[in-house]
Amino acid sequence: MTTHTGIGKTGQAPAAGAATRRPPTGKPALGIGLIGHGFMGAVHSHAWRTAPHSFELPCKLSMNVICGRDEERARNAAVKLGWRSAASGWREVIQRADIDIVDICAPPHLHGEIAVAALAAGKHVLCEKPLANSVGDALAMTEAARLARAQGIRSMVGYNYRRLPALALARQLLRDGTVGDPRRLHASYLQDWACGPDVAQSWRFDPGIGGAGALGDLGCHLVDLFRYLCAGDRIQAVACVQTAVRDPGQQRDVDDAAVLLGLSASGIPVSFDVSRVARGYKNALRLELDGSGASLRFDLERMNELQLFSDDVGVGTQGFRRMLISEPGHPYLSGWWPPGHLLGFEHAFVHQVRDFVLSVTSAADPAPSFEDGLAVQLVIAAAQASWECGSAWTQVAHPPVASDGNHRQEQR
Amino acid sequence: MTTHTGIGKTGQAPAAGAATRRPPTGKPALGIGLIGHGFMGAVHSHAWRTAPHSFELPCKLSMNVICGRDEERARNAAVKLGWRSAASGWREVIQRADIDIVDICAPPHLHGEIAVAALAAGKHVLCEKPLANSVGDALAMTEAARLARAQGIRSMVGYNYRRLPALALARQLLRDGTVGDPRRLHASYLQDWACGPDVAQSWRFDPGIGGAGALGDLGCHLVDLFRYLCAGDRIQAVACVQTAVRDPGQQRDVDDAAVLLGLSASGIPVSFDVSRVARGYKNALRLELDGSGASLRFDLERMNELQLFSDDVGVGTQGFRRMLISEPGHPYLSGWWPPGHLLGFEHAFVHQVRDFVLSVTSAADPAPSFEDGLAVQLVIAAAQASWECGSAWTQVAHPPVASDGNHRQEQR
Amino acid sequence: MTTHTGIGKTGQAPAAGAATRRPPTGKPALGIGLIGHGFMGAVHSHAWRTAPHSFELPCKLSMNVICGRDEERARNAAVKLGWRSAASGWREVIQRADIDIVDICAPPHLHGEIAVAALAAGKHVLCEKPLANSVGDALAMTEAARLARAQGIRSMVGYNYRRLPALALARQLLRDGTVGDPRRLHASYLQDWACGPDVAQSWRFDPGIGGAGALGDLGCHLVDLFRYLCAGDRIQAVACVQTAVRDPGQQRDVDDAAVLLGLSASGIPVSFDVSRVARGYKNALRLELDGSGASLRFDLERMNELQLFSDDVGVGTQGFRRMLISEPGHPYLSGWWPPGHLLGFEHAFVHQVRDFVLSVTSAADPAPSFEDGLAVQLVIAAAQASWECGSAWTQVAHPPVASDGNHRQEQR
Amino acid sequence: MTTHTGIGKTGQAPAAGAATRRPPTGKPALGIGLIGHGFMGAVHSHAWRTAPHSFELPCKLSMNVICGRDEERARNAAVKLGWRSAASGWREVIQRADIDIVDICAPPHLHGEIAVAALAAGKHVLCEKPLANSVGDALAMTEAARLARAQGIRSMVGYNYRRLPALALARQLLRDGTVGDPRRLHASYLQDWACGPDVAQSWRFDPGIGGAGALGDLGCHLVDLFRYLCAGDRIQAVACVQTAVRDPGQQRDVDDAAVLLGLSASGIPVSFDVSRVARGYKNALRLELDGSGASLRFDLERMNELQLFSDDVGVGTQGFRRMLISEPGHPYLSGWWPPGHLLGFEHAFVHQVRDFVLSVTSAADPAPSFEDGLAVQLVIAAAQASWECGSAWTQVAHPPVASDGNHRQEQR
Repeated sequence: MTTHTGIGKTGQAPAAGAATRRPPTGKPALGIGLIGHGFMGAVHSHAWRTAPHSFELPCKLSMNVICGRDEERARNAAVKLGWRSAASGWREVIQRADIDIVDICAPPHLHGEIAVAALAAGKHVLCEKPLANSVGDALAMTEAARLARAQGIRSMVGYNYRRLPALALARQLLRDGTVGDPRRLHASYLQDWACGPDVAQSWRFDPGIGGAGALGDLGCHLVDLFRYLCAGDRIQAVACVQTAVRDPGQQRDVDDAAVLLGLSASGIPVSFDVSRVARGYKNALRLELDGSGASLRFDLERMNELQLFSDDVGVGTQGFRRMLISEPGHPYLSGWWPPGHLLGFEHAFVHQVRDFVLSVTSAADPAPSFEDGLAVQLVIAAAQASWECGSAWTQVAHPPVASDGNHRQEQR
Repeated sequence: MTTHTGIGKTGQAPAAGAATRRPPTGKPALGIGLIGHGFMGAVHSHAWRTAPHSFELPCKLSMNVICGRDEERARNAAVKLGWRSAASGWREVIQRADIDIVDICAPPHLHGEIAVAALAAGKHVLCEKPLANSVGDALAMTEAARLARAQGIRSMVGYNYRRLPALALARQLLRDGTVGDPRRLHASYLQDWACGPDVAQSWRFDPGIGGAGALGDLGCHLVDLFRYLCAGDRIQAVACVQTAVRDPGQQRDVDDAAVLLGLSASGIPVSFDVSRVARGYKNALRLELDGSGASLRFDLERMNELQLFSDDVGVGTQGFRRMLISEPGHPYLSGWWPPGHLLGFEHAFVHQVRDFVLSVTSAADPAPSFEDGLAVQLVIAAAQASWECGSAWTQVAHPPVASDGNHRQEQR
Repeated sequence: MTTHTGIGKTGQAPAAGAATRRPPTGKPALGIGLIGHGFMGAVHSHAWRTAPHSFELPCKLSMNVICGRDEERARNAAVKLGWRSAASGWREVIQRADIDIVDICAPPHLHGEIAVAALAAGKHVLCEKPLANSVGDALAMTEAARLARAQGIRSMVGYNYRRLPALALARQLLRDGTVGDPRRLHASYLQDWACGPDVAQSWRFDPGIGGAGALGDLGCHLVDLFRYLCAGDRIQAVACVQTAVRDPGQQRDVDDAAVLLGLSASGIPVSFDVSRVARGYKNALRLELDGSGASLRFDLERMNELQLFSDDVGVGTQGFRRMLISEPGHPYLSGWWPPGHLLGFEHAFVHQVRDFVLSVTSAADPAPSFEDGLAVQLVIAAAQASWECGSAWTQVAHPPVASDGNHRQEQR
Repeated sequence: MTTHTGIGKTGQAPAAGAATRRPPTGKPALGIGLIGHGFMGAVHSHAWRTAPHSFELPCKLSMNVICGRDEERARNAAVKLGWRSAASGWREVIQRADIDIVDICAPPHLHGEIAVAALAAGKHVLCEKPLANSVGDALAMTEAARLARAQGIRSMVGYNYRRLPALALARQLLRDGTVGDPRRLHASYLQDWACGPDVAQSWRFDPGIGGAGALGDLGCHLVDLFRYLCAGDRIQAVACVQTAVRDPGQQRDVDDAAVLLGLSASGIPVSFDVSRVARGYKNALRLELDGSGASLRFDLERMNELQLFSDDVGVGTQGFRRMLISEPGHPYLSGWWPPGHLLGFEHAFVHQVRDFVLSVTSAADPAPSFEDGLAVQLVIAAAQASWECGSAWTQVAHPPVASDGNHRQEQR
């Protein structure tokens, strides 16, 4: 394996092949292979297709192969989602010479095996969240990422909400001192798709595949956002209560809802509510962070808005202000439309592709790293252990290597 | 002491005295004595003055005496707030023959002594929340209330938010099955008056007077609302994290913020956030309750609204609906204005006076009872103990006598 | 008739009569007579009862008589609403020696006759809105007010929404330059009480009593608020479209909804929407005013809030801010509760009583004056004429005497 | 010219050329040529790239050429936006054999000439809004569309907001009787980009290029939405007031803001507010439509939501419900993400491409047609004439051929 320089191995061929059809750009290309073509596979495909048209990238992106277990479905997905070829085995994909980046959108129980093998094969890896279902897998992935990093191979976990402009702005307001010292963080992530008695059986209900229910699936986003916003702090101990709503004729082996109370190193209380059975909440990730200087509020169902209360104006006209995050100077907005023209869910994934590609081509480490993903899993694992021990307070294990949760590249 | 029949001892005199000035109504009168003339004293005074003009009551209300430690300030308060006389000692007030009802708005460390003495003197007692600072006081008060009840003497604790039309409607929607089985309750009560370094020293910072900081002052409302809405359920165990924000030069001995995680008898997780230092939140008691049938949301800063998500309409047009609680059929609205004409903070206290007077005159027990108030204190005490034991899970003691948290009279 | 000094003629008696019951205050008293005991009569009664307990007034208020056509109903109203006596003829009331202030809450077709006679009898007059149904009446009332003013007799028209803290703050933000030059004002006042086929027949549907339908009843508030906020400007010409929704079996002779387009002297477009048949809108007076410096938004169904967009903060954190108008420094808030404890509909009437009494006792002219009320009627009359002439543009007549729409006393 | 069958002339070549790179699909292809590469050019490019991956289309889309006046900038745009080639003259584009569809995103003063020539050359035409700056141009375009239609050539004007799921649902609620008979429509479209003294000189300020200022640019959307939602009704007469905010050193020859009052054939008042100088409003197209059965509200700054008030539930729990338009059954949502995952501004353009392509391939007429676009221009022209005649009421001319404003294909 040779140290990568940030230029794709497959850089020349596609550019040559494209020369008859469009003006040559002289840019090298990165070959992409995507594992999985479900919901996340479709969203990632959109992002790979779209990022080069929205942002200036130093290379082209060749969407070379998409992979799924069923050959015919994978072929159909390739046509539908814009990939040049299809494959039915991920081992084949990670060995292909025309692949520089492996994007893992398979169910979480497969993340570890694929990521470790892909990194060993010298491929940059973007892995969907959660990093893994087990801490063991996550540790192995982190170790693989560490070794690969020394070879110039990059790895990142797909906590996409970090790339929402509103939350990226929230982080700026924490870093520039506007918010001051955090005093309280409460977040919830509520959905209701599992409410009905007739909800389709999903792998999300199988702990062997989906991991720890709502806690694992939704809670991990909240833990990651805590680490993103309150960089430098960490959740030291947690107590967790879970509930399972068992409709007649339907046994579920994972939690449908959970509440997690955490205590951070800096002494602030952190509480998280997650649920798949909260009627009326469709994709309601909401977050409140009060600091010594200002308070922030966010609601994913109004994802283009961030609310800020600050005493930077006279007391008589203070109030929570609803900032529409669509100005040219807001994070990631340089790639999009004039003020007031909203972004949607998939835009964060376009930003994720942009940032990951910039990391790969600049030989810089992207964030959130696998270490960040491991840190999240350690909190989830502690919460799960807490619930299994009667909700007892449970220490969150320290990861072997410190991770600061910081982005190396940030766009303003 | 004789058993009261619900007719005030002072019934005749004021009617006679008033005869030359207004058409005699023939109604008996209840003589009221108010202990305290601070913020709550002013609000209660408003309620005593206003209730007879908004609702049909079976008796007149004679605002006979207001009591404060400083004689001159009490006299001024009498003039300002509409009381016939002033007193500087509460023992004098509870012995006066022209007093049927003692309304206790003194700081909480005095509640126990006054209430026990007043009940012993045969007076009906309305006591501001929290019932007491210590479980010991609360137990003594409950025992006094039990003994007095046998003599027809009524007692009630002033958890006023039960009388907000929006929350009274919420309870109806729980009782009539609209909400179904509760699955999750999260509530927060956030204020920011203690934010600044220059906040005036208040008795609320003295644990000997104000009790358990934000937890005691604000959290007790949330515990009471849980008991009100989820009647029949109880919080069995709690874990609590507290924070104190110590600004330079200002030592505070009580918590400024707290988070409480509770587990209910029916297995639902309950979480509460309270704070006096949450910038931008002025009086933000917010509550979310998801049930198997519907979800509710409430925000005290928009107290005339209740949000309901229910699948009683087709899936294509479902959504949280913002109900403006101002229709003639809504709880307590018969006393007020046409639809869309909003109520304010003090209206809940007018409703409280109405309901308490109806209880007294109909020889029925009002709610929330002292037992209800004790039940709240037991949760707060467990939370306080939890914090003092490193946030350990702490069982909530059972009160000596069961209380179901129900209203005996409800208005629709 | 003698020139009043601002001290009530009835000042001594009530104080003496009250002396045995409460500490004497030595303040003179003003005797109040209220004509009408419907919805507005009840709200005004509340205000007269409450104002002295919320604000420092230089005199006592003696609620001496309430008047209604039916003697028994008037007597019941006196008891219910807190008046010392009842009367069935308004001519008797305005001649009574113990009456200093006549408060007119009769239907609008009676305003003129009562007000003119009361002023001639030397009584200060507070007259509910609209000032009158006809410009002729309004002119006569204005002339009577002018003559009385020379004798120290005060008069005011009850456009209560000027006394909402949020709108009083809006005016401050216009006066202090925050908003800059107004560029656009759109306001709507929507209700839905007349929607159903079974709505009770109300005098509001009788043009001989209620005047010009929704346009007259609701539109007049919007015209008054334009004059209040954009003081110095005036609506010069209007075009008006009206609609009547005639349900089967129910003939209505007045408009149910109207739209008014106006052009102001300063060149800004002004548009008003009013309706009694707008489903879901209960009392929705909403107002948007954009200026060269900032923009304001208000919604009466969230009357404790005012929204402000101003570029007084950096472009990256700008947004409409929801100001909760409940701070001690906000208009009228000195009389009420701590921050975040909301006010209701009737509070504006308490403020109105406060301001009117301060005017009467300080021998200053209150606002809005009868001239202000006339100015509103001239716009409504022009709009009515417009509709009757095929919505043609119609000039708004100038009142005989200029009125600047300004308050003489304002509380901050 | 032969009658088109809905299969692109260029159908075989691209499929063959693509065969080596991706699995052959056997689908024919349509060749697309885009005129213009500014803001709208970028949005349309995104839509052409994305539609085939989000929706099932019966053909492939070959993005063959993008056209701009400056050759180098056009070439750069081709690379950035994903087109196979660039051209600097639109006449060349409309004659190319590999072009089936001409998509016109040039400034409006060029729409007429390009569209007429493209239709004459046998190309299907999608033309950005407004259809034209002058009624003369619009008439010529409509005539050209009529002639082309007989040859199977399709044409459509790009009023994209019809394809927002929330507004498409609004239309369904009007068509299925939920809303009942419309009684009032008020809409506003406010922006603030022209506020500052330093706003860049844009062609939007040049009446020769951009047409009638805010009225033409923003107002046309509102007129089109009225026609879309209230299909069958028409605006018969209008009165219009305009304002121009002339900052020092900056002469603008078009209106910055306008208010339009219209009277519809069915007798309902329609009012529109538009502005480019309304501080704080970024892209605020808001719409309120009250009907005899229900009321609707929409705000483009929260474009994934539609508010509905309906009495389909008991009076005690009625309220405006905030419907999150993200369910599988909502219009266009089959192409996107699970419930609660929001769409952005550009999604409506993807839907527009989908619908236009389905029309072209099924030989059905798309909507809004050029006749619909003409009908909008006639209202704008009448409004402009009104303003030039002192805001006089002005009749809206009838188009030569009736247009019902209906979609032929609608997706649910």
